[in-house]
Amino acid sequence: MGRTTTNTKDRLVEAAIDLIYARSFGSVGVQEICVRAKVQKGSFYHFFRSKRELALAAIDVLWQRLQAQVFDPAFADDVPPLERIERFFVYSAEFQRAQARVAGHVLGCPFGNLALEMSTQDDVLRDRLDALFRAAERHIEKALEAARADGSASRVDPPSAARAVFAYMEGALLMAKTRNDPEAVVTLGRSALALVTACREQSACAN
Amino acid sequence: MGRTTTNTKDRLVEAAIDLIYARSFGSVGVQEICVRAKVQKGSFYHFFRSKRELALAAIDVLWQRLQAQVFDPAFADDVPPLERIERFFVYSAEFQRAQARVAGHVLGCPFGNLALEMSTQDDVLRDRLDALFRAAERHIEKALEAARADGSASRVDPPSAARAVFAYMEGALLMAKTRNDPEAVVTLGRSALALVTACREQSACAN
Repeated sequence: MGRTTTNTKDRLVEAAIDLIYARSFGSVGVQEICVRAKVQKGSFYHFFRSKRELALAAIDVLWQRLQAQVFDPAFADDVPPLERIERFFVYSAEFQRAQARVAGHVLGCPFGNLALEMSTQDDVLRDRLDALFRAAERHIEKALEAARADGSASRVDPPSAARAVFAYMEGALLMAKTRNDPEAVVTLGRSALALVTACREQSACAN
Repeated sequence: MGRTTTNTKDRLVEAAIDLIYARSFGSVGVQEICVRAKVQKGSFYHFFRSKRELALAAIDVLWQRLQAQVFDPAFADDVPPLERIERFFVYSAEFQRAQARVAGHVLGCPFGNLALEMSTQDDVLRDRLDALFRAAERHIEKALEAARADGSASRVDPPSAARAVFAYMEGALLMAKTRNDPEAVVTLGRSALALVTACREQSACAN
């Protein structure tokens, strides 16, 4: 693709991210996205068949951004495995603070927001978000496999404990958004490791 | 109020609950609510100044319903205090199953849904939901005070542990909705008590 084509498509994706993340999927129309991206409405349908298709592209870009800014640094192996999980909450809170400085409001998890708004209305979006949550859980699971191997959590069941920790993260981000206070992620995150020790092999929570 | 007046207002509230809970706040218009409630649009503005005001009335009715169907039975003192918290997850899953049977989809927490969709867009709704979450946390906190008193969780910090358990509940309901599987609330709920033991007096998570 030439420079202009790439720029036009990218501008539409960035406009969608900014508008939908700051408000909601339903409150943002194609027209408004085009105005913000400085793109003619006719061009929109050259790149995307629908607002949903643009949302899927926006989800992919945001996911890469969250990998680079939160997941990769949090789960890097420069600290012991369980500290990576604690760091996941600290870095998530930092991401929320940075977003709040720009938007003037805690925005929460972009994927959790979309999941609760759209899951009953659009199975394509729901499936994508479900797959993405499983990829997020996989980061936690790998840290827990390392904690099992080095003996720091020798009896943990990594898959079920990872699901518990990630659900707790989504809950913490929901509370932070509702209170408009990013520090809730830090405070709640201090209990996250308790969920790890609860999910031992053959325990009740290993489903 | 006469019977007709009461019925008209109630019908609008019930239509709003059904439509908004099954989809989202933004995707449902006053016109559609009136059609479902079999009410003329002119009458709508006799009872409510705006869709937001109707939503606030719907939140109150749903809150009463959740008290009767989930909170009151879960936190009744016929079982030991910590069992009440486990039961909160079991009864919440049952509520989700019942909703899913009618709606054909897991609907999640009606308040969590609205909080993530509307918190950046409407501070009046956000404040109401924030207050309601604090009331929900208070149920958990009272059970934890009882657990402290009877020695089953003698060193727990009830306020911070209640916040952790409730955030975890919201996260579990978010995952259940995204996976379209109410059983996720049961499975994840099996780890909820771990958050209680993590929040001891003067521990890191007592903010």
